[in-house]
Amino acid sequence: MKFTVLTIFPEMFAPLKESILKRAQEAGLIEISLVNFRDYAASKHKNVDDIPYGGGSGMVLKPEPIYFALQDIRKTNCKQRIILLSPQGKIYDQETAMRLTAFDELIFLCGHYEGFDERIRSWADEELSIGNYVLTGGELAAMVIIDSVARLIPGVLGKESSFEHDSYSQGLLEYPQYTRPPEFMGMKVPEILLSGHHAKIEAWRRKESLRRTFLRRPDLFAKAEFMASDYELLEELAQEYPELARHRAKWERFRPRPKLKRRTKASDQAKPDSQGE
Amino acid sequence: MKFTVLTIFPEMFAPLKESILKRAQEAGLIEISLVNFRDYAASKHKNVDDIPYGGGSGMVLKPEPIYFALQDIRKTNCKQRIILLSPQGKIYDQETAMRLTAFDELIFLCGHYEGFDERIRSWADEELSIGNYVLTGGELAAMVIIDSVARLIPGVLGKESSFEHDSYSQGLLEYPQYTRPPEFMGMKVPEILLSGHHAKIEAWRRKESLRRTFLRRPDLFAKAEFMASDYELLEELAQEYPELARHRAKWERFRPRPKLKRRTKASDQAKPDSQGE
Repeated sequence: MKFTVLTIFPEMFAPLKESILKRAQEAGLIEISLVNFRDYAASKHKNVDDIPYGGGSGMVLKPEPIYFALQDIRKTNCKQRIILLSPQGKIYDQETAMRLTAFDELIFLCGHYEGFDERIRSWADEELSIGNYVLTGGELAAMVIIDSVARLIPGVLGKESSFEHDSYSQGLLEYPQYTRPPEFMGMKVPEILLSGHHAKIEAWRRKESLRRTFLRRPDLFAKAEFMASDYELLEELAQEYPELARHRAKWERFRPRPKLKRRTKASDQAKPDSQGE
Repeated sequence: MKFTVLTIFPEMFAPLKESILKRAQEAGLIEISLVNFRDYAASKHKNVDDIPYGGGSGMVLKPEPIYFALQDIRKTNCKQRIILLSPQGKIYDQETAMRLTAFDELIFLCGHYEGFDERIRSWADEELSIGNYVLTGGELAAMVIIDSVARLIPGVLGKESSFEHDSYSQGLLEYPQYTRPPEFMGMKVPEILLSGHHAKIEAWRRKESLRRTFLRRPDLFAKAEFMASDYELLEELAQEYPELARHRAKWERFRPRPKLKRRTKASDQAKPDSQGE
C-alpha cells in the first residue's frame, strides 16, 4: 500500500521512519512518498498561499500548486483516494481505518495553519479530522492516519493476529497487564496471574475488560457484543455496579436455561435432564 | 510552559522542531524536553519491557524505568501534570486542551506497541486518547496534544487573537475561504467576496458557517450558541433545509418583535413606531 503526502513540511515526517513503520517500508509492505507542493508553485518566490478574498487575518493556500501536484500523482490503473485533513472533516475512527485499507494509494493534502482555498476541497474524495481539537497543520493528522492504517496491513505488526487483540477491535478495552517484578514499591501483581491456572486467568481478564469498558467508556460498553461465557461475569459486575444492571437485556439471552420437568406416561418422575424443546 | 515526553523513540519528535512550534521554542514561549526512559533501565541490556504475567502475546512495559525517570522529573515548586497516552483514556478534545494550558509542565508517558504494566497507570494524573483508533505508540498522540495545547499559549500563533477564529472556538465550522486567482480551471470565487461590501461579506460568511456546521457536524450545530444577527440567516437556511427548522427553538428568542399599535388620548392613529414595553 502506498501513502503519498502533499505538504510543505516534508521534514516533519520523521515519525514514519522509526520502529514498526520503518520495518514495514524496508519489507516492502508499505511505501511512503512525500511531495513538497511548493515545488509546483509557479511564482518566482514559490508562494503557496495568499491573502483571503473578502478580508480577514491569516493566509489561504492557493489552488494551483496543489492542483498541479495532484496532476502528477494521479494514476488511472490503481485505486487512489485523496484525503484532505481538516478540522471540518468527518471524525476519523477505527472503522474508517479499516475501510481505507481497501485502497492501493492514499493521498493526503496537508494545510499548515492557513486555510484552504475552497476549490482545493473539491478535488478531495473525502475530508477527515482526527478529533475535536485544532492543530497547527494537517501533518500530524496525516501521520496518525498512516500509522493506524498501516498497522492493519497483514505482516506490518509481525504477527498476523496482533491487531485483533487491540482495544476496540473486539469492542472492549484491554484488561490490565503486568510484568516482572511481582512486587515493586509495595505494589503487587494480582495473585491470579501468578497462579498458572489458565481458565481462571482468562475469566479474570475478560471480567476486567468488561469492568474497565463499563467504567471508562460506557459508549463502547453500550455497543459491545457479549458472548455466552460473559453471562456470569456480567452478573457479578452488576452486583458491584447497580447502574450496569440497566444493560441486562443485552446478555439476558445467555441466561442458563432452568432444567425443565417432563411428564411421561411411564413415570411421573422428572427425567434427570431435558433439552426443553 | 514546559512539555516533557518519556519515550524510547525521541527521534520521532521532529514535527515539534518545525514551523510554529520551532519559533515558539526559540522565543522561549514553550520548552520541550525528551527523556529516553531506557536510560533508567537497571538491567545490563537496558530492557524496558518484559513478557506479560498470565501469558499472552506482546510485551509489557516494565514499571521501574518509568518510575525512576519520573522521580528525576518531578518537582514540588511547579504545577505538573502526568498524562498517560492510551486508547483506554478519556477522549481528548479542545476543551481538554484549554484546561491543560493551566499547568506549568505536562509530562507525557508514551508506550510503543507494548501495553503498560498496570502499576504505571497509577502514577499518571490522567489518561488520554486522541481518538477512537489504535496507533502503534503514544508518540504521535503526545505530539498532537503538545501541538494543540502550545498554539493556545499567548504569543505562539503570532497574533494574540488567531485561535479565536478557529473552527470549534466559536462552536461553528469555518466559512469557505478563497484567494487568488479569481478563476482557476473554470472554478470561480463567489462574486460577493470580490464586491468589497464588508457587511454583506460578513453576513455571507456567517451564513456559510452555519450551513456547513449544520450539514457536516450536526452535533456541533445542536450545541452552538446563536446571536440576534443569526435570526434572518437561520430562517433563510430553514427554507432550504426543512430538517433545520427542528432547531428553531434555539433562535426563536431572537425573532424581531412585531410593531405594536398604541392608543393614546390625543389620537386613534397608531404612532409610527413603538418600543412595545
